[in-house]
Amino acid sequence: MGKIYFKDLKAHLGEEICLEGFVDKIRDLQYVQFMILRDGTGEVQVTIEKNDDNKNLNEIVSNLTLESTVFVTGTLMDSPNVKLNGMEMIPSTIEATSRSEAELPIDIKDKGKTLRETRLDYRFLDLRRKDNRLFFECETTLEHALREYFIKNDFIEIHSPKIAKGAAESGAEVFKIDYFGQEACLSQSPQFYKQMAIASGFNNVFEIGPVFRAENSHTSYHATEINMADAEISYIKSVDDVMDLEEAWLKYGIDALWEKHGEKIEDTFKVEKPNTEVSFPRITFREAKEILKEKYHFEGEREDDLERHEEKLLCQYAKEKYKSDFIFVTKFPFAARPFYHMLDEEGLTESYDLLFRGVEITTGAQREHRHDILKQQMIEKEINPETLDFYLEFFQYGCPPHGGFGVGIARIMMQLFHLDNIREATFIYRGPTRLNP
Amino acid sequence: MGKIYFKDLKAHLGEEICLEGFVDKIRDLQYVQFMILRDGTGEVQVTIEKNDDNKNLNEIVSNLTLESTVFVTGTLMDSPNVKLNGMEMIPSTIEATSRSEAELPIDIKDKGKTLRETRLDYRFLDLRRKDNRLFFECETTLEHALREYFIKNDFIEIHSPKIAKGAAESGAEVFKIDYFGQEACLSQSPQFYKQMAIASGFNNVFEIGPVFRAENSHTSYHATEINMADAEISYIKSVDDVMDLEEAWLKYGIDALWEKHGEKIEDTFKVEKPNTEVSFPRITFREAKEILKEKYHFEGEREDDLERHEEKLLCQYAKEKYKSDFIFVTKFPFAARPFYHMLDEEGLTESYDLLFRGVEITTGAQREHRHDILKQQMIEKEINPETLDFYLEFFQYGCPPHGGFGVGIARIMMQLFHLDNIREATFIYRGPTRLNP
Repeated sequence: MGKIYFKDLKAHLGEEICLEGFVDKIRDLQYVQFMILRDGTGEVQVTIEKNDDNKNLNEIVSNLTLESTVFVTGTLMDSPNVKLNGMEMIPSTIEATSRSEAELPIDIKDKGKTLRETRLDYRFLDLRRKDNRLFFECETTLEHALREYFIKNDFIEIHSPKIAKGAAESGAEVFKIDYFGQEACLSQSPQFYKQMAIASGFNNVFEIGPVFRAENSHTSYHATEINMADAEISYIKSVDDVMDLEEAWLKYGIDALWEKHGEKIEDTFKVEKPNTEVSFPRITFREAKEILKEKYHFEGEREDDLERHEEKLLCQYAKEKYKSDFIFVTKFPFAARPFYHMLDEEGLTESYDLLFRGVEITTGAQREHRHDILKQQMIEKEINPETLDFYLEFFQYGCPPHGGFGVGIARIMMQLFHLDNIREATFIYRGPTRLNP
Repeated sequence: MGKIYFKDLKAHLGEEICLEGFVDKIRDLQYVQFMILRDGTGEVQVTIEKNDDNKNLNEIVSNLTLESTVFVTGTLMDSPNVKLNGMEMIPSTIEATSRSEAELPIDIKDKGKTLRETRLDYRFLDLRRKDNRLFFECETTLEHALREYFIKNDFIEIHSPKIAKGAAESGAEVFKIDYFGQEACLSQSPQFYKQMAIASGFNNVFEIGPVFRAENSHTSYHATEINMADAEISYIKSVDDVMDLEEAWLKYGIDALWEKHGEKIEDTFKVEKPNTEVSFPRITFREAKEILKEKYHFEGEREDDLERHEEKLLCQYAKEKYKSDFIFVTKFPFAARPFYHMLDEEGLTESYDLLFRGVEITTGAQREHRHDILKQQMIEKEINPETLDFYLEFFQYGCPPHGGFGVGIARIMMQLFHLDNIREATFIYRGPTRLNP
C-alpha cells in the first residue's frame, strides 16, 4: 500500500496503519512521550506511554533527533482531547528510516532567525518551511494552469535549443560555452526560435523553460537563470491580439491558482487576489508620461523608457482609476526596443510592457515579419545582418504576421505573493555570486 | 475577429469571411485561377475567374509565389463539385502578407527528395511538412498528459538549475561555462536536485526540461541537448513503487495521445498503438541473460550490462510472451550503475531499465538515502566525497527513502512513431557537429 498522506488521515480513524514523515517535535515527559510527525500535507501526533511494554519504543523515541524520518505502525485513534486534529497514533513499532544530525545549520521554523544567504546555502532545509512548501505547490498549480490555457487553445509546445551559436539578442551579455572547440553561448531567450516556429506554420506556440542572462546585476529581481514562459501567435491584426491573449491567459492562471489554494495563500502570505474581473487598462507610453507628469508631478530620467518609480506610480494609477492590478503601456519608442519589434507609421513600436503591482513583468510586441524591413531595422540598430543571417532566413520563404510575449514565472510569483526578493521565489537561485547548492 | 482555422470552415459556409494561410498550390488556367491555402489545420480552395472585374485579383495571383502568406476576404461557398472539402472561397480581396522567394532550398512536400542534413539546415521549412506538424502536435499532447498525470497525483514541479558547479554525474562529459570567472558546467541531469527536493520534504516531484551531454557521439539516438522528464518519489517501499509509477504514467500518456490523435498517427506514420492493456513484464538482469542465452542463443559482450541487440531480443520476448511493447529489467550489477543506486543484500542495484520496442528509454532506481552508506558507495566508485559534499549534505538532516526515473521525451516519441533518427524527433537538434540553426 502506498503512503497515507496526513491530510487524509481522517478516513483511517480506528485502523491499523503506517505513518511516514519527518519528526517535527518531541516532548518527552515523565509518564508519556509525544512525537509530532510532519509530511508536508499535515501533521499528526504519536503518543507513547512510558511503561514496561513500551520500553523499546520509549528508547527509540529518546534517541530520535528532530528532522529524522520515521516509519511508524500502530492504531490511529479518534481522540477529541488531542489538540492536533483530534486524533493520535498509538504505535506498535517505530523505525527511523533516516537520522538527522542533532544540530541544524539554519532555523527551519522562523525565517527571520537566519540570514538569507545562509538560508540559501542550506536551501534544502529552508524549503522545509511551511510557507516555502505552499509557495512551490502554488507555482506548480499556476504553471500547469498557464500551460493548460495554451493546450486548450491548440498551441504547440516547443523546446527551443538552449545552446546557440550567437547571442540571442544583440548587445546583451551571454554565457559562453566551449562546444567541441566551437564558440557557443547559452540562449537568453527563445525569441528567434519561437519566431522560427511561426515561419514553420505552427500558428501558435509556447514554451516554458530556462533562459540565461550573464548580467552582473545584484538586485532583488535579477537572476542569471530564469524560468520563462513564452508565447508567439500567428495571423494577428495588431499587438492588441497579443495583449488580449496575455490578459486572458494570466486571468486563467490566477483564477485557477486562487481556486485551488486561495484560502491558504491569503492566510499564509497575507495577500489579496489580483482583480481578474476588470479589463487591464491600456495606455500609450506618451499618455503614461503625461499622467506621471500631470497627476504625480514626476518626470523620469529617461525619455524613451520607464524607470522603476514610474512603473510604481502607473500601477497606483491603474488601481485607483480602474481597480486593476495590471496595466499595459503600449507604443514604446524604438530606442528602448529590440530591432524586431514592428513600427507604426510614427516610428513607434507596436509593443507593450505589462506592469503588475508596481513592476514590469512582460514585454510583448507585434514582430516585423517582412524580410526587407526587418533587415533595415537591424541596420538602424547597428547590427550587422550577416551575424544573424540564420534568423533573417526565417523570413525569406513566407511568414505570417505574428507577435508574442515572454514573462518570468518567478517575477509573477514574487508579485502575487508580495515577496521582496527573487531569491525567495526560485527553487535554486543563480546569481553572479551564487552557484551553490 | 480572430483567425478562422481551416478545420472549422464548415461552420462558415455562405458567410463573408477572411482566410489566412500559406499559398500551398496555384493552378493558373486559361479561364480560371485556383489557389490552395494551407494553415496547418486544413486546406481550402480559392477560385478566381479570369474576367475584367477580377483583373486586379488575377494579377495578384499571377505574381504570387508558393509559400507566401495571404489574407483573403470573400464569400465561402458550398460547392459540392470542388474535390477539396466541397467548398471554395470566391474572393473580393487578396493581399500578400509576406512573400516567399520563388525557389525553396529544400523539398517541403517530399522528405526523401532532400538530404537529411540539408533538411536540418532549413529546419524551419522542413517543419512545414504535414507529418512533422502532426509529430509536434502529438509531442505537445503527450507531454501535457504526462505532466497532467503528475499534477493529478499532487507532485510538485521543480526547475532545477541548469548551471551547476561540478559535473552532475561522475566521469561523464560536461559542457564547461565561464561563470563570471568561476568554472561551471551545464547540468547533465536534475538527479541531485530532485533528490534535494525529496530532502526538503517535497514528497513527490517532477521536472520536464533540458539536460546537456557533451558526448562526442554521432549515433542516430544521441543528442547533446535533450528534453528530459524526471520524477522522484518519497516513502517508497522498494523500486517496484517506482516502476508502478512509471508504468501507470506512460500508459496514461499513451492513452491520452491515442485518444486525441490515434487515427491520424496510424494513418500518417503507419504505426500501432503500444499495448497499454497488459502489465509490463518485470524480469531481473540475471533472468534476462538466461533468456537471451537459452531462448535466443545469444551472449552479449558485457557481463554487467545489456547491449543494443540484447535489448532488441528482450523486447521481442516481451511481445511474444506477454503481448507487451515494454519490459522492465531489474537488479543490474553495481558496476553498470551510478554510486547513488541502492544495493540489495547481494550487492545488486535496486534499479531497472525500461525497454520499449527494442530500445532502453529509462533508467530508474531506489536511491541510497542513508548518508554513511552513500558515502561508502562513492568511495567504492572511486569518487572523492569532497567533490560532492554539497550533495552528501542533503542526507545529513533526515531524508525519506525515495526513488525515481528519467526519460527523454524524444526517445519515447521516436519509438512511438518508429522514427529512425532522433534528429527527426527534435524541434531543433543539437549534436557535436550541429549548432545551427
